[in-house]
Amino acid sequence: MRADGRAPDALRPITIERDFIKTSAGSVLVAFGDTRVVCTANFANRVPAFLRDSGKGWLTAEYGMLPGATPERSERRKAAEGRAQEISRLIGRSLRAVVDLRAVGPCQINVDCDVLQADGGTRTAAITGACVAVYDALRKSVAKGNLPRVPVTDLCAAVSVGLVDGEVLLDLDYREDVAASVDMNVVMNGAGNYIEIQGNAEGAAFPRELLDRMLDVAANGIRDLIARQRRVLDLA
Amino acid sequence: MRADGRAPDALRPITIERDFIKTSAGSVLVAFGDTRVVCTANFANRVPAFLRDSGKGWLTAEYGMLPGATPERSERRKAAEGRAQEISRLIGRSLRAVVDLRAVGPCQINVDCDVLQADGGTRTAAITGACVAVYDALRKSVAKGNLPRVPVTDLCAAVSVGLVDGEVLLDLDYREDVAASVDMNVVMNGAGNYIEIQGNAEGAAFPRELLDRMLDVAANGIRDLIARQRRVLDLA
Amino acid sequence: MRADGRAPDALRPITIERDFIKTSAGSVLVAFGDTRVVCTANFANRVPAFLRDSGKGWLTAEYGMLPGATPERSERRKAAEGRAQEISRLIGRSLRAVVDLRAVGPCQINVDCDVLQADGGTRTAAITGACVAVYDALRKSVAKGNLPRVPVTDLCAAVSVGLVDGEVLLDLDYREDVAASVDMNVVMNGAGNYIEIQGNAEGAAFPRELLDRMLDVAANGIRDLIARQRRVLDLA
Amino acid sequence: MRADGRAPDALRPITIERDFIKTSAGSVLVAFGDTRVVCTANFANRVPAFLRDSGKGWLTAEYGMLPGATPERSERRKAAEGRAQEISRLIGRSLRAVVDLRAVGPCQINVDCDVLQADGGTRTAAITGACVAVYDALRKSVAKGNLPRVPVTDLCAAVSVGLVDGEVLLDLDYREDVAASVDMNVVMNGAGNYIEIQGNAEGAAFPRELLDRMLDVAANGIRDLIARQRRVLDLA
Amino acid sequence: MRADGRAPDALRPITIERDFIKTSAGSVLVAFGDTRVVCTANFANRVPAFLRDSGKGWLTAEYGMLPGATPERSERRKAAEGRAQEISRLIGRSLRAVVDLRAVGPCQINVDCDVLQADGGTRTAAITGACVAVYDALRKSVAKGNLPRVPVTDLCAAVSVGLVDGEVLLDLDYREDVAASVDMNVVMNGAGNYIEIQGNAEGAAFPRELLDRMLDVAANGIRDLIARQRRVLDLA
Amino acid sequence: MRADGRAPDALRPITIERDFIKTSAGSVLVAFGDTRVVCTANFANRVPAFLRDSGKGWLTAEYGMLPGATPERSERRKAAEGRAQEISRLIGRSLRAVVDLRAVGPCQINVDCDVLQADGGTRTAAITGACVAVYDALRKSVAKGNLPRVPVTDLCAAVSVGLVDGEVLLDLDYREDVAASVDMNVVMNGAGNYIEIQGNAEGAAFPRELLDRMLDVAANGIRDLIARQRRVLDLA
Repeated sequence: MRADGRAPDALRPITIERDFIKTSAGSVLVAFGDTRVVCTANFANRVPAFLRDSGKGWLTAEYGMLPGATPERSERRKAAEGRAQEISRLIGRSLRAVVDLRAVGPCQINVDCDVLQADGGTRTAAITGACVAVYDALRKSVAKGNLPRVPVTDLCAAVSVGLVDGEVLLDLDYREDVAASVDMNVVMNGAGNYIEIQGNAEGAAFPRELLDRMLDVAANGIRDLIARQRRVLDLA
Repeated sequence: MRADGRAPDALRPITIERDFIKTSAGSVLVAFGDTRVVCTANFANRVPAFLRDSGKGWLTAEYGMLPGATPERSERRKAAEGRAQEISRLIGRSLRAVVDLRAVGPCQINVDCDVLQADGGTRTAAITGACVAVYDALRKSVAKGNLPRVPVTDLCAAVSVGLVDGEVLLDLDYREDVAASVDMNVVMNGAGNYIEIQGNAEGAAFPRELLDRMLDVAANGIRDLIARQRRVLDLA
Repeated sequence: MRADGRAPDALRPITIERDFIKTSAGSVLVAFGDTRVVCTANFANRVPAFLRDSGKGWLTAEYGMLPGATPERSERRKAAEGRAQEISRLIGRSLRAVVDLRAVGPCQINVDCDVLQADGGTRTAAITGACVAVYDALRKSVAKGNLPRVPVTDLCAAVSVGLVDGEVLLDLDYREDVAASVDMNVVMNGAGNYIEIQGNAEGAAFPRELLDRMLDVAANGIRDLIARQRRVLDLA
Repeated sequence: MRADGRAPDALRPITIERDFIKTSAGSVLVAFGDTRVVCTANFANRVPAFLRDSGKGWLTAEYGMLPGATPERSERRKAAEGRAQEISRLIGRSLRAVVDLRAVGPCQINVDCDVLQADGGTRTAAITGACVAVYDALRKSVAKGNLPRVPVTDLCAAVSVGLVDGEVLLDLDYREDVAASVDMNVVMNGAGNYIEIQGNAEGAAFPRELLDRMLDVAANGIRDLIARQRRVLDLA
Repeated sequence: MRADGRAPDALRPITIERDFIKTSAGSVLVAFGDTRVVCTANFANRVPAFLRDSGKGWLTAEYGMLPGATPERSERRKAAEGRAQEISRLIGRSLRAVVDLRAVGPCQINVDCDVLQADGGTRTAAITGACVAVYDALRKSVAKGNLPRVPVTDLCAAVSVGLVDGEVLLDLDYREDVAASVDMNVVMNGAGNYIEIQGNAEGAAFPRELLDRMLDVAANGIRDLIARQRRVLDLA
Repeated sequence: MRADGRAPDALRPITIERDFIKTSAGSVLVAFGDTRVVCTANFANRVPAFLRDSGKGWLTAEYGMLPGATPERSERRKAAEGRAQEISRLIGRSLRAVVDLRAVGPCQINVDCDVLQADGGTRTAAITGACVAVYDALRKSVAKGNLPRVPVTDLCAAVSVGLVDGEVLLDLDYREDVAASVDMNVVMNGAGNYIEIQGNAEGAAFPRELLDRMLDVAANGIRDLIARQRRVLDLA
């Protein structure tokens, strides 16, 4: 059994609080256990240069961390460097996979995910929460008559899975993450298909059979997360 | 009467929620109406070069704003420039005025104030909340036996006051702030003395008599804020 | 009596030398004792984005310090950071309070204040000198027929006042500034009204009665400075 | 058949030229078809702060691209941003998985991968070439008597695999990469185990069955690459 | 005799390999002994602001160094600072002296010189190689019918000359360069006229008579280099 | 005759004002006609890493320009880029050629040259003025007993010479500089030897005979400048 009493294939307590930030079109406070992330989605009336005059919209994401979010305070400047940019790009790709950018029109959806408190899995919480924030922002556009329908093709969610002391664990907290010899983040949609898989050996390289088991555990976790997203969004 | 029904000399609804961020020694979510700021206080085992071997501690503050905190999303990079640095320095000076840095010992207290939602008065909310976060962090050090007593000489709080349409208003929200022809931020301690005064004419220069009236109104507001700080901190 | 023999409420020797830099529309070398600042004012044919098509002009200021201006040489890079930006913003606000930006037309006045030699009060000398440089630049525009009249509503000047060893002193030099327990910068116009007040307790917080006395002393100093500005500008 | 006549599961012509840069301890010019990358490995007598006094060594990598490496010249500054940092981190993780950092001793291996000519798969070519450069650098240390044996536990190589027009293709060139609806990079060791898997849907999300097929094709390609590495390194 | 057996006024073995980078319009790998530089030339459809609507084109150059190009690995960031910018400007000026920018039309030629391996004389190798790369790029434009003729007025090449142990040496390698008490770089055209001379005393100042001797030796070296350029370009 | 009535081989009016900045060890306001530069020299108790424990000192220089120094105001940031760094390096090399760094002891002389007003020849004025500032700073060290004698081996000065409309002109002002087809800066010492020569063809390449004439004219100008330096420094 895990330090917090969870079964190996159990998620931490998940909460998704909508409309957390009034100033943003869509906003969510998402918690995966002690990991808490503020996700906002806002519209801007411009698109990147490569889409100009295409009629298509764009979605981009930025990931940050409050200095006090980690037990050892992190420097504010570093928060914009390597690792944060890598996660920002992952969040953007994941959300673009479920938003119909042609139907969004010539605007850009800016997603910001800022970690208030970090205890492992900040990127997976960010993707899972941001998906709801983007859905909400688009739904408000529909309510205002700016869009005929919510231009998303599906929902998406993400979860981590890792190998700790020879056991496959779902949704690792910080201590488990540090102890893991294999670490994987999986992003899937509501249809059960893959949007992104990132797995890496922290210590020894891992065999195909283990990869397969981890993918099975992750898929179950994501199914659960997407069910929660649907519930909190009042989708049938 | 004001747009939200307040009397000219009334504060907005104030809430101060302690222990908002588990990973920080002290942390507060402070709200002045719709302005909401996360304040954290953490210790680092080093002091700036000019204090090395002095036995004295230091306190420094950084102020930031989540991109989604304003109706028009702000750029993440800009958040560290001019205005933010100016406010960071103000917060640091204000808190150093009530912390006994000799008694803190050779460490640095890092205060971070990050605005989740901005509706005017973010710097005054930040100072007011950060004071509680710092007190809490120091109290925990006392509880751990690291300090013999909480090394603060007083509490401090801050409030804005401005002249809008010829009337002196306390604790301006964003719309009032934009409309103000005189804008003043006042930081005071529990003894009713000044720590910092910053007043400036946005339009016409203002006479001494008006300055006096604004100072009176601010003093009353701060007295109220410090009473709330004491209550939330369970100080007699 | 003060180290340099001045009365507590006396200014240092003040000189304002016009047309110090031929390449700038307006330029001044201002000295407050050993503090010497070059102030230039130049026009640019563009306005910030928020004023585009408004017909209104703008004024912005930048403050810098030559590396050799302080006994301990300062790094050239640092000269553009926090403190310098804060002072730049103060200079800009102060000058905008006396320039009629509507009458200036769609251009930007760029003010640069560069400290050649620093001995306390660099920001107050900068404001006082820059006001003359801006007036001169505008007067030349009138002479060239670009403007019908000099679009300023008043002059402005600034001075520091502080509490040193229990005594209120006007126009502090560097040693006094370091020793001051309360430090205040005041910017006023020729009509005796406030444009900006910045006061802060360096040590103990200070009572209202002391604030009042410091404001009185500052007002007298500024009256004197504006008289000198008028004389050097040959204004009646 | 593919534009260059390759079978779907065939690699491009692969060349690995050792000792390409005399000034570096290990250096390789690797080509995957028209993608050509210079990889160098050098030793520095320091380790990152977190390893100080651990006796352990470290390996870090940086990835860059010459401005002329792409048909549309790329800006030199951008070469150090987001995407490049992400690839740098991937290269570093991959090589650390096969180098025995305890046996390397208290030094840092700096790997630099600079793309001379880009035609898709620059990161996989970089990993494959850098592995040889690192091996060579370590072998020279052994020859000099600085190390008792080459401290690597295995070789590693990387390849891309993607879905283009419904077909699974190995080692995509730039045109195929742009056309791919699923894109995956796989890093494996000589024992056939995974070091890193990064797969993402560029368009529609993809099912498990497709993932499995892509992993099979990638494993064959990597087996071939590692055989070539062994041959070029004269390993039995 | 010199360490590598050369006569004092002899060049190192020189090779100029054309079409080294397929993705660039013109590209050269130039070697002056162990100094090897990749030079690329590419066209961009824009000109700097000061040439807009002039019909004239521009040429600009950037010089960089791969981290592994020196025995002590150089930091990637530093590669863009002071010295590199100075050399970039020199390369740009030298090439602009032989390209007829009016005849090039409203476009910019971007030259990039990246040092693969450094052994002294990287800037002179870069100029000599880049001249060939630019010629090739322009010749391709002629072949495509974009230009009526190759718009160059002459070729140019560069060489170093220095005083080492009282003897004037041509084309210094790194060890000689470090030992030189006078160091000079000379750029000339095919007509034997000067484009740029940069000479500086590393130790003692040097007399006119020595300057004259060094210029003679340099002129012979450049004559030889330009003959090689003509040969490799198949110019009569 | 030239626009200002000078003979082709005449310097502009030259003034060298010592002790211009009280806060610096040595300081000069130098004017070459309308070009005016503040030069300061200060000591720091550290040396660059490559000289640590060598007992030798160092001298480094930084060149900047006040934004208002040019008719078109220059951006403050740009003032630290390419051209400024190149000139900074030139000033440093020139002064190091006449300072006996072994005799200076383990400290660094920081020279700062800031252009107040630019009218051509700012780098030559800077070198000529900085030499006096450095001499003064060192003389003060001797007076304080920190050094046994002024550790300079000679003085140095610099001047520009150019070809304008077929005529060789000395000490070009801005208009002449823009019109010049050949532009050369020469730095020499009091013994009449070269410290640095930088000549470049702005338009057509230039022949050896012209180079010789320009060097003759420059040598005369520098002889005159060094005589003035000696006079202003009260050297026999």
